[in-house]
Amino acid sequence: MARTDISTLGEFGLIDHFTKAIHPQNASTKLGIGDDAAAIDHKSYRTLATTDILLEGVHFNLEYVPLKHLGYKAAVVNISDIYAMNGRPTSLLVALGISKRFSVEDIDELYSGIRLACSEYGVDIVGGDTTSSMTGLTISITCLGEVKQENLVTRSGAKPNDIICCTGNLGAAYMGLQLLERERIAAYNNPDLAQKAFEGKEYILERQLKPEARKDIIEALKTAGIKPTSMIDISDGLSSELLHLCKASGTGCSVFADKLPIDYETAAMAEEMNMDIVTCVLNGGEDYELLFTIAQQDYDKILPMQDVSLIGYMQKAEQGCNLITRSGAEIALKAQGFNAFEN
Amino acid sequence: MARTDISTLGEFGLIDHFTKAIHPQNASTKLGIGDDAAAIDHKSYRTLATTDILLEGVHFNLEYVPLKHLGYKAAVVNISDIYAMNGRPTSLLVALGISKRFSVEDIDELYSGIRLACSEYGVDIVGGDTTSSMTGLTISITCLGEVKQENLVTRSGAKPNDIICCTGNLGAAYMGLQLLERERIAAYNNPDLAQKAFEGKEYILERQLKPEARKDIIEALKTAGIKPTSMIDISDGLSSELLHLCKASGTGCSVFADKLPIDYETAAMAEEMNMDIVTCVLNGGEDYELLFTIAQQDYDKILPMQDVSLIGYMQKAEQGCNLITRSGAEIALKAQGFNAFEN
Repeated sequence: MARTDISTLGEFGLIDHFTKAIHPQNASTKLGIGDDAAAIDHKSYRTLATTDILLEGVHFNLEYVPLKHLGYKAAVVNISDIYAMNGRPTSLLVALGISKRFSVEDIDELYSGIRLACSEYGVDIVGGDTTSSMTGLTISITCLGEVKQENLVTRSGAKPNDIICCTGNLGAAYMGLQLLERERIAAYNNPDLAQKAFEGKEYILERQLKPEARKDIIEALKTAGIKPTSMIDISDGLSSELLHLCKASGTGCSVFADKLPIDYETAAMAEEMNMDIVTCVLNGGEDYELLFTIAQQDYDKILPMQDVSLIGYMQKAEQGCNLITRSGAEIALKAQGFNAFEN
Repeated sequence: MARTDISTLGEFGLIDHFTKAIHPQNASTKLGIGDDAAAIDHKSYRTLATTDILLEGVHFNLEYVPLKHLGYKAAVVNISDIYAMNGRPTSLLVALGISKRFSVEDIDELYSGIRLACSEYGVDIVGGDTTSSMTGLTISITCLGEVKQENLVTRSGAKPNDIICCTGNLGAAYMGLQLLERERIAAYNNPDLAQKAFEGKEYILERQLKPEARKDIIEALKTAGIKPTSMIDISDGLSSELLHLCKASGTGCSVFADKLPIDYETAAMAEEMNMDIVTCVLNGGEDYELLFTIAQQDYDKILPMQDVSLIGYMQKAEQGCNLITRSGAEIALKAQGFNAFEN
């Protein structure tokens, strides 16, 4: 593959190069890239805004993450936050810090992943900033969206007895990461074996490398006439997200270990690595599934919905936030999360 | 000063710590920090959005930039972009990557600068992301704002014969940087001399370390009933900003060297360092003054305005983009800008 040094284009040439393939799809994008700021017409809707920063060596390892997938994922994790407010994502701002290690072609790959995600989710890239960095790659993405005030779903609306729902399945992205890390280390010793180790594990790899945001669920909830009472996307792990909902809503919760949705590849990988699957589901992050609560009266409406599991219920705060094990024992949930500041 | 390791608070504790002092001032901030996204009510206004990323070692040097000033500046450069659209800034999202070198107290200093700028300009901090970094400090800020569609001023509306206006004075921030760099090197040899070298140069230091956005000018233009035909803020240097306006508007321009607004401290510093002052004004950046064009018919309205200089006029594209020197010679403007990818 050709390798064009970024310095050959210069700052303005580089911005032109990356932005020429970007064309707005939303009528609300009144002014996109190329001015001091973008202008978006959200009319009577509320503007939603969220930002995430991804740093090489902390959030991703380019030894096994292709740049196109990285771009896709960086966009999706922000888009997912807008859906978690029951909103529709409209606009993306992309700020990059790029070290000399990267060529124009590398950044083209990254951008092609960002553009693909935007195309999948109907989002316009409306601005950004591109600069050099001393070390590695920095990706900072901001996503804007819109929501009618009456449809806004925050973390704080859950009430005791509300049903806790979860989309898709959990722990897959985390087990995919464990697999990639294991094979990265193994590949030092024997590069030929690596490819083989991934056979039959494509699903968990895809969940780690190319996660999707649950646009389909937001649309299905609308069609079913259900407005969740609270909602969050699962980026840090089920346990910490449950605690966020409970803290914001002033409630406690009970979730049942035997109700947690787990794919068989995830379970098999946990078994192979001798890890406790429930712990992986509670503390492994990056699934970007939606965790939400609904009122009891919506029970009949949620039952026929595809890809939604009912995993527990909200309760009074003084009853605590607990996992009920298969044997019926209550274990208090802990906010494991991702303490990037440790070790 | 106390030094608290960031790891002692953990990710969620750290976010709580930094956000507890943040209180919305705008009624439009319907939901601030603490959910998956912020919700802002821009009603019938267009939403404006801009983002900037600042990396240690590329955009700032903590050897001479205090963290509080850095926070202030990081906010102001984004706020300035919203004014450059003739808008009103409303909301800020702050994403930080922090290495172990920094303590909680350090980041408190940085945040106190960000909060001060927000308070000065009536902006709410509505969200962000805080994570660890392997190396140094990364600051990525996104600013949202609002503007009525009929008041939006882009880069592309200038016409031949429009008058080119510039606020404040230029080159000061650049000469402040030259001074700081010179004294940083000198201080290695003799630390006692450094403080003395700054006497009588406080203005250019402040322009570099604590720039302001021209909120006052945007308000004065409104009061005077002037809507610029095009506008941009001067972040990269006058020359490159003029070329941006001309390219976007499809015009050329003539600006007069003897009309360029220059403070005497800036001029004295250029003299002292044996640098050509006009070159410093054309290519030195970070002044965050506004560069705008107005129709000829607004000439009488602009004349009484404080702190605005008329520096030239727009012309047809085929007449080029030129500086007219004191001796009357025409020199083509070049986009020097800031090529962070070179060397």
